[in-house]
Amino acid sequence: MKTPPDSHAMPATLASLTGQGVEAIDTPALVIDLDAMERNLARMAAFARTHGMRLRPHAKMHKSAALAALQMQAGAVGVCVQKTSEAEALATAGVTDLYISNEVIDPAKLQRVATLAQRLQAAGGRLAIAVDSLEGIARLAAAVEGRAAGAAQTLVDVFVEIDVGQGRCGVPPGEAAVVLAQAIAAHDGLRFAGLQAYHGRAQHQRGVDERRHAIALAAQAVQRTRALIEAAGLPLPLVTGAGTGTFALETASGVWGELQAGSYLFMDADYAANVHDPAQPAFEHALFIKSQVISAGATHAVCDAGHKSHAIDSGLPRVHALPGQGAMTFANGGDEHGILHLAEAGGELPKIGDTVWLIPGHCDPTVNLHDGLIGVRGGLAQGTVERIIRVDARGALT
Amino acid sequence: MKTPPDSHAMPATLASLTGQGVEAIDTPALVIDLDAMERNLARMAAFARTHGMRLRPHAKMHKSAALAALQMQAGAVGVCVQKTSEAEALATAGVTDLYISNEVIDPAKLQRVATLAQRLQAAGGRLAIAVDSLEGIARLAAAVEGRAAGAAQTLVDVFVEIDVGQGRCGVPPGEAAVVLAQAIAAHDGLRFAGLQAYHGRAQHQRGVDERRHAIALAAQAVQRTRALIEAAGLPLPLVTGAGTGTFALETASGVWGELQAGSYLFMDADYAANVHDPAQPAFEHALFIKSQVISAGATHAVCDAGHKSHAIDSGLPRVHALPGQGAMTFANGGDEHGILHLAEAGGELPKIGDTVWLIPGHCDPTVNLHDGLIGVRGGLAQGTVERIIRVDARGALT
Repeated sequence: MKTPPDSHAMPATLASLTGQGVEAIDTPALVIDLDAMERNLARMAAFARTHGMRLRPHAKMHKSAALAALQMQAGAVGVCVQKTSEAEALATAGVTDLYISNEVIDPAKLQRVATLAQRLQAAGGRLAIAVDSLEGIARLAAAVEGRAAGAAQTLVDVFVEIDVGQGRCGVPPGEAAVVLAQAIAAHDGLRFAGLQAYHGRAQHQRGVDERRHAIALAAQAVQRTRALIEAAGLPLPLVTGAGTGTFALETASGVWGELQAGSYLFMDADYAANVHDPAQPAFEHALFIKSQVISAGATHAVCDAGHKSHAIDSGLPRVHALPGQGAMTFANGGDEHGILHLAEAGGELPKIGDTVWLIPGHCDPTVNLHDGLIGVRGGLAQGTVERIIRVDARGALT
Repeated sequence: MKTPPDSHAMPATLASLTGQGVEAIDTPALVIDLDAMERNLARMAAFARTHGMRLRPHAKMHKSAALAALQMQAGAVGVCVQKTSEAEALATAGVTDLYISNEVIDPAKLQRVATLAQRLQAAGGRLAIAVDSLEGIARLAAAVEGRAAGAAQTLVDVFVEIDVGQGRCGVPPGEAAVVLAQAIAAHDGLRFAGLQAYHGRAQHQRGVDERRHAIALAAQAVQRTRALIEAAGLPLPLVTGAGTGTFALETASGVWGELQAGSYLFMDADYAANVHDPAQPAFEHALFIKSQVISAGATHAVCDAGHKSHAIDSGLPRVHALPGQGAMTFANGGDEHGILHLAEAGGELPKIGDTVWLIPGHCDPTVNLHDGLIGVRGGLAQGTVERIIRVDARGALT
């Protein structure tokens, strides 16, 4: 896969930052500590390699073809996305192996899925998608029908999603999955690729034992379903799933063959609040919001970053104090403001004009608020902007 | 002011919807019920006219020059924004009277503020800004210094922000505001324009009496500050503030001269949860998320709208059941999913492929997630797309 250019159609104000010091970054802005990110990238790649696991990171997190390319250069087989338009945006920016790990139902959208599958196949790549209903399979098959599959014989890889504890999409483990696997196999253009088994809820259970219990139950459900599918005469090529909170558990189970973790690359405050499982590598915070103090009173200071610059679905940002800065807490100040208090008595509040760095609560929807990520080399305090990473699928909702 | 074109540089998939039926709108998407929006527009305009109040709606809500133009055609004197880049985006799209109702501190950003002020003045318009510190005034004055002010003599209108209960920006009411007003008046390029007095917390206090109490205290604080400023020999031209939750109270107080309400145009679930104050017009929901059911199980259905398509800082969306649909509740399904349950026993869950309409919890950050708003005429059930409204300042954070 060729590496897409870093910054096509980027806002000029971002593009012009390359080569400048951190102090030149206007606020609020989303900044990547490239050194930390690259360490995270290498740790995850080493884990997958060592354990013989396929790694297909979830690009719903970074929405960036440049970062997908870095992940694939480090050994990832491709990336996941959640939306058709996300897949299209990343394909346009050069990614050729994409898995829409989600259900697509609209006929017009499924036509786009089929077109994208042809496009990827022509580029030597592949498209996969998840299903959890006969209706979904029939609609997908109708969109694919009559389209040339080329040398690969089938056009789209199809995973049956089973609900292993998330309580969202997916059929119950067991017979329902067999019925869907058979329905997929009955269509010429579709290839039954295996099971999508992602336990989203387990990712953020704080204790290691809780997560271990949740994934053990999920593994049993997958095993039981696999046995039924194989007993029905269908080979089951792959079980895919796992996230940044639990991937060492799925790996150890021997049941999963592919890991979909995405947040490991940036790490957010929510994942960092998990008790660390020593079986998996530790990741560093690599995604930060640079903000500036615009108001300072006797009891608090106010910075220019509110929930239009960072998502708060998984909690507020944490303040990342640089050496010399006192510890601070962040309170919600609305769409455009953050309210800063001292965490300990006796310190000094930041002054008007000071820079305050924040660690977002949840990286995925935070990245989606920004057109570009500002990659800094040499640390947040005195580093230099090395590259601007375009959020190619920013706002790609459909 | 000339009306900007509806859809410059819009995603082609949105632009091509004009003239098509609602069923052609891909999901998830943000849809405006134009009939409801226009009734809201007229009701607010009539209220301001009847009560002799200036109306300067907050464009942080819609971020759209086309909607600002509609508001100004209906009598608004201009619009507010929160960010310099928001002001720039709306100015580029044709808005000439803008008030940045927020503090700007960064010297480079203040240069942009000064440039924008010159540009608006040259177009026959005006820029205003808020301050709450001597440091902020000195920095603003430095940026304005040496720039020709033209016939208006001063280049920028400056409001002193006082904290009337929000607990965010603003100096305490009283002497501190006098000091700032005098500092503004001492600079050639700046005009002391009055007080910014917005009580954000009061907007969402549910009971009418609570809101009345909060605004009564705010009014006393403003009156006291006004008396001190006037006693110091400075005329106080205008007090500006108020939001959709309380504007009838600020109006009745006789203290405020300008209303900044913004959400009235779209109304969201959070504002609708307030007990209605009969002194102010009732507004209708005009902003909706069109979503589609992509998965359906025995206990719940799943739609394709999660918190990447709607903000949840002020609560989850409410399901807007169309005639024939049963009442449903919406639970958070993560970034890309919403989980639907029946609100009452005995009903029927929607089926795969069904459309489900949602009312966002908070309109401002929801709009900021979308490049365009799809304006529908004739209702959500069977209407037609009349126009696409560009979110000109989408992502304008700085």
